[in-house]
Amino acid sequence: MQQRTQDQTALQYNVIGTRPIRHDGYEKVTGRARFGADINLPGTLHGKLLRSPHAHARILSIDASRALQLPGVQAVVTAQDMPEVSAEVSDQAEGVMVNYGFYTRNVMAREKALYVGHVVAAVAALSPGVAEEGLALIDVEYEVLPAVLDSESALTDGAPAVHERLQTMDSAGRRAGGWGDTGGKTNLANRFEFRVGDVKAAFKDADVVVEESFSTESVHQGYIEPHATTALWGGDGNVTVWASCQGSFPFRDHLATMLDLPMSKIKVIPTEIGGGFGGKGMGGVYVEPTAAFLSRKTGKPVKIVMSRSDVFLGTGPASGTNIRVKLGATQDGRIIAAEAHLVYEAGAFPGSPVGSGSQTMFAAYDIPNGLVEGVDVVVNKQKSGAYRAPGSPAAAFAGEQAIDMLARELGMDPIELRLLNAAREGTRRIGGPAYLRIGNVETMEAVRDHVHSQTKLEGPFRGRGVASGAWFNGTGPASAIVSVNPDGTVSLTEGTPDLGGARVVMAMHVAEVLGIAAEDVKPAVGDTDSIGYSSGAGGSSLTHKMGTACFEAAQDVRRQMIDRAARVWEVSPDDVEYDDGVLTHKQDSELSMTFGDLARRLNGTGGPIVGRATVNPGGVGNAFACHVADVEVDPATGKVQVLRYTAVQDVGKAIHPSYVEGQMQGGAVQGIGWALNEEYYFGDDGRMLNSSFLDYRIPTALDLPMIEAVLVEVPNPGHPFGARGIGEVALVPPLAAIANAVSNAIGVRMTELPLTPAKIRAAIASNDGVEA
Amino acid sequence: MQQRTQDQTALQYNVIGTRPIRHDGYEKVTGRARFGADINLPGTLHGKLLRSPHAHARILSIDASRALQLPGVQAVVTAQDMPEVSAEVSDQAEGVMVNYGFYTRNVMAREKALYVGHVVAAVAALSPGVAEEGLALIDVEYEVLPAVLDSESALTDGAPAVHERLQTMDSAGRRAGGWGDTGGKTNLANRFEFRVGDVKAAFKDADVVVEESFSTESVHQGYIEPHATTALWGGDGNVTVWASCQGSFPFRDHLATMLDLPMSKIKVIPTEIGGGFGGKGMGGVYVEPTAAFLSRKTGKPVKIVMSRSDVFLGTGPASGTNIRVKLGATQDGRIIAAEAHLVYEAGAFPGSPVGSGSQTMFAAYDIPNGLVEGVDVVVNKQKSGAYRAPGSPAAAFAGEQAIDMLARELGMDPIELRLLNAAREGTRRIGGPAYLRIGNVETMEAVRDHVHSQTKLEGPFRGRGVASGAWFNGTGPASAIVSVNPDGTVSLTEGTPDLGGARVVMAMHVAEVLGIAAEDVKPAVGDTDSIGYSSGAGGSSLTHKMGTACFEAAQDVRRQMIDRAARVWEVSPDDVEYDDGVLTHKQDSELSMTFGDLARRLNGTGGPIVGRATVNPGGVGNAFACHVADVEVDPATGKVQVLRYTAVQDVGKAIHPSYVEGQMQGGAVQGIGWALNEEYYFGDDGRMLNSSFLDYRIPTALDLPMIEAVLVEVPNPGHPFGARGIGEVALVPPLAAIANAVSNAIGVRMTELPLTPAKIRAAIASNDGVEA
Repeated sequence: MQQRTQDQTALQYNVIGTRPIRHDGYEKVTGRARFGADINLPGTLHGKLLRSPHAHARILSIDASRALQLPGVQAVVTAQDMPEVSAEVSDQAEGVMVNYGFYTRNVMAREKALYVGHVVAAVAALSPGVAEEGLALIDVEYEVLPAVLDSESALTDGAPAVHERLQTMDSAGRRAGGWGDTGGKTNLANRFEFRVGDVKAAFKDADVVVEESFSTESVHQGYIEPHATTALWGGDGNVTVWASCQGSFPFRDHLATMLDLPMSKIKVIPTEIGGGFGGKGMGGVYVEPTAAFLSRKTGKPVKIVMSRSDVFLGTGPASGTNIRVKLGATQDGRIIAAEAHLVYEAGAFPGSPVGSGSQTMFAAYDIPNGLVEGVDVVVNKQKSGAYRAPGSPAAAFAGEQAIDMLARELGMDPIELRLLNAAREGTRRIGGPAYLRIGNVETMEAVRDHVHSQTKLEGPFRGRGVASGAWFNGTGPASAIVSVNPDGTVSLTEGTPDLGGARVVMAMHVAEVLGIAAEDVKPAVGDTDSIGYSSGAGGSSLTHKMGTACFEAAQDVRRQMIDRAARVWEVSPDDVEYDDGVLTHKQDSELSMTFGDLARRLNGTGGPIVGRATVNPGGVGNAFACHVADVEVDPATGKVQVLRYTAVQDVGKAIHPSYVEGQMQGGAVQGIGWALNEEYYFGDDGRMLNSSFLDYRIPTALDLPMIEAVLVEVPNPGHPFGARGIGEVALVPPLAAIANAVSNAIGVRMTELPLTPAKIRAAIASNDGVEA
Repeated sequence: MQQRTQDQTALQYNVIGTRPIRHDGYEKVTGRARFGADINLPGTLHGKLLRSPHAHARILSIDASRALQLPGVQAVVTAQDMPEVSAEVSDQAEGVMVNYGFYTRNVMAREKALYVGHVVAAVAALSPGVAEEGLALIDVEYEVLPAVLDSESALTDGAPAVHERLQTMDSAGRRAGGWGDTGGKTNLANRFEFRVGDVKAAFKDADVVVEESFSTESVHQGYIEPHATTALWGGDGNVTVWASCQGSFPFRDHLATMLDLPMSKIKVIPTEIGGGFGGKGMGGVYVEPTAAFLSRKTGKPVKIVMSRSDVFLGTGPASGTNIRVKLGATQDGRIIAAEAHLVYEAGAFPGSPVGSGSQTMFAAYDIPNGLVEGVDVVVNKQKSGAYRAPGSPAAAFAGEQAIDMLARELGMDPIELRLLNAAREGTRRIGGPAYLRIGNVETMEAVRDHVHSQTKLEGPFRGRGVASGAWFNGTGPASAIVSVNPDGTVSLTEGTPDLGGARVVMAMHVAEVLGIAAEDVKPAVGDTDSIGYSSGAGGSSLTHKMGTACFEAAQDVRRQMIDRAARVWEVSPDDVEYDDGVLTHKQDSELSMTFGDLARRLNGTGGPIVGRATVNPGGVGNAFACHVADVEVDPATGKVQVLRYTAVQDVGKAIHPSYVEGQMQGGAVQGIGWALNEEYYFGDDGRMLNSSFLDYRIPTALDLPMIEAVLVEVPNPGHPFGARGIGEVALVPPLAAIANAVSNAIGVRMTELPLTPAKIRAAIASNDGVEA
């Protein structure tokens, strides 16, 4: 893969930037690694979940007596077995507020079932089969209520209220258009507004104005491993939970509130995780409390493993969205005005990512006048969840098509227009702070200069699309422990699960500092009892925060090794130099030993050496990406073939380039699926009709070209080796890049995802030869 | 229980000296705790061991072909599948030399089987039953050789040589008596000598001289949990071993040599341990390498769980001994000369604890002239193992009876004679360094003043015996990690398994430093990948070394908490006081918060806090105990009933008095069993005839009075709270105390253990009314 290194000092690294084999690779490819479903404690019971068949229904009664008479059924739980936790509690871990009244009701419906698939009861039995049989014997009496299934109807006057008592938090949110004006009740859960300059005046000054409406459907993260947990509630009140999660500490904290226990009574042991993409992060607690309460009732470990259908019906897809966007530019291509209205479906409980969609929509550009409004709407569907760069792909789908429309109006090259208006160091995104050093321009330049862009695309029904994307990236508390082994290797324990190669990346941080090989660092993920507080793997934060913790823990070891060498040699630590894994006396080169030499002598010279670090680092580097896609449309069938795809991204400094490339390729593939195939397809009764991987189609290798990943390296000064988070921004541009390419191929602007053959054939038919 | 506190400052502790419920108590009493046999990985195979039926035989061939044809048998291993590791390798962990040529041959016989029960092959099969069947189908061709079954015959001229090439390490060891003079070959494995002053001259000056020979038989530690392990040798060469062991790191290091792998390729996960008493310590690797090689052959996890018979036949009992002792004193009771010759059976490979027996035999006394010779002899029996205060109980059995004989000759009270000659601060034991502050005199005074001693024992065939005992106590490398949780609790990870309440004791160290409750510390034992190097729980070292590590790790947290409070308040850390779990600004008492208050704020004020410590502390406090026992002998049957038993011990400072008392009571009980009932009973062919708990009789509660434990607290200045190791010395006095009491009851000196009814009836019959 091509690499563009801006940082010449990078050449001095021994380990950073190389591609060692991941430590967990062997176990994963041979099937030895233990994922959520692989935990088997003696006497384990199997839990299954009963889901509502109604999109909106009051639960009048639940009678489990027939189920409990079935031999092998050991317990049934409903919301009545779980504490009422209605308070909005500050989550200390991540510094965010969590409404546990909503969160617990999504885990288990209490007064009402709010979507088809909403869990209303659970059974624990001796086998999964008996548990399934038990579900069928639970008698639930419902009063079926009218449902709202899309944001438009949810916001009309007189629409059924998903939550009777929901108040729009921002009373100014009631707009003249009548949104939320439903006689005191409202489905408008939240409203955000970001402003800069004078938008009205700027649109008047604009020479060219474009305006369009776009929509996207709910799509699922599609992680391969369904949610799976085992919980054991001990008679002493200590609860142990094995969970496939992106963060064991955030899960512990959520469970403490949901189970009404002190967090120190709960131990979360993270299993290996077969994909998460946000869906097993902060909002990803679905089955764990239920397993725990079933365990409390039975006194036995209880395991719940979701089916794929459970995952589709009962977890959180990305929001469906409706976005209106308007851009104004001067004749020479300066974008001087931007306005957008984003309406995101939260699903059954408030909390879509419309806020971050609103903030990132124009974040790659320097626009002096802007107004972005975001609206969060509850509907009778699955509660939406986080999915890589939550809210941003749909926003970019709208925003980056509008940029393309503007380029067409202006007769400018889409990349040149973007470069002309690109955000750079010092630019403030609309409503946000000024950027530090970022690589946005560099990614656009890299696309412009890439052989892909330089190669002319010819032929009918072929088109090229380009799109940029931005993401904040994150940080958080993180802890790491580095222990020196007598054979010159070191053991590393970190507190956050390994989603996509974190073990090897963290080991490389330690190896670089200590001047040893990455293979000589043994990384492990600790449980919540064995390591300091560590926030989850999410928000593209892990390499930044945990990498910093590993760097600092290795520095702690390094200092102690210098002190120990000084003690062994009976000299001052100031006279000891530590370079490339060798300790040397500055004045007497006879006094020299390797890291391994000294490691062997530690126990006899004062004891072992362990380094520790606990951090919550600032200095996050924002992420930018620019993708270019070539497509060919079959006019007869409407099928889109992706011919070529190049993903360019500023990665700061690629610690392990292979896994950075993998993240970029994966993001592009998920975006291609989102653009072309994927959607939650609902019947009129709110039932999802395609809740299997046969009917919900994610791209396979046969559907895709090789995704070329181009790494631009503009080092982030806030990370010891210059790294930026790279996990999420890769999914921001693809929806728009594909849509721009298809519009270019068929001459019709495509505004509704997914770009199904039917929609494309209809667009071609409507075209009458007019260019879009 | 009565406590004698010498340390008035002890009253200032909040947690130290209290009796919180142990953290692991609930899991252990409810059966949830996972011991060695409770590990069940998917696809586990079951290993069984084929043992030699001959005490001494050359292995001519092993043919496993019939076994391998049995359906379900997956693999057979013999020594041919294991690397030849003959080098004497320095064990970095404990600073001792280990002869792995011997150690590996005890795990699996190579050229010869050296005792009945010596493992010659192992089978892995789908079930334990099939594995057993497989054993019967392995054809081993032996050349049976003459065996030596006791040290006396082993040292005679022309005795069969257990090891053809064994050389006495000390060539001066060939004494005039002809020991070891076997035509170049020898069974005399080692010889130690400790001297002070001029013994010959001193005996000439003595007014009274006593001399006697004593013997003891092999006895087993009798831990309730048999050895159990599961090993998984991954295709990537990483080996994971679950082991019931006293030290996971020492096991890892042994396995690295035995499996011929770098130690970092091996991860040892310590399970809960159901007793060890030395038998699962440094020398306790029996089944783990075999399980690992079976796993390598099959690619599957292999579990080996010993039966009780396996434990008796195939693990290391305490040595059988023959000890000659001679004491000389002046008329006023000053012991001026001591001489002893100790011959210990090593079993099939060199390495009895005769060295430590020799050094502790007179360690409670200040004797100006002494000569102690220790001889290590190989015989065709189980390789002897460590058992609480290895070598010392038998030595005290001889030495303390000789003291009693001297008291009788001198007409002195046995306690007064001991007090008159007691070692104290500054005394040098024979061949050893001078003592620091010790509590030897205090234990003797406590026995003298105790109501037990003050209560006259009347009636025929009743007798009282007193005995003292000494033990070194140990130290070693130890690592601990303390992580602060947001709810004000802390997690503690330590690197050494919990044998007898270590979790709560370590938690108390942390709680005391941080001013929080012991219940607010969550202790856990880490595996070898998750914590720094930590030596094993043995040598009564754990509270000293790991307690110091926990103390220091908590201090590390305390310092960081002070710094953080200073940062929150924007003041200097020097102005922050930390007392009883409360942080206060010295000048402004308005600025005050509890540990919990600050814990909640850590993540938002710079990140979590984790403390670490790695130590190898000096300042070990030596241990002394003095026991007094009352017995009644039934002259008709010879049965001994223990009427009353009081164990007094200098414990330095009891961190958790209940577990100190438990250790003392357990030591007394094991000593009573050793004195009265327990022995390896061999047939002439070297076959142990009583290898079950039905035939090998350890005392039950019905056999025993309440053991009163009296804690004397002479603080050890080398430990932060004054603790001394307390695990081993409790087993040193009981053999002698019981023997002295029986001799007192029947008027005959009892010199051979165990004091079976038959021996006692014979002694009574031979007595003819003459006082012993």
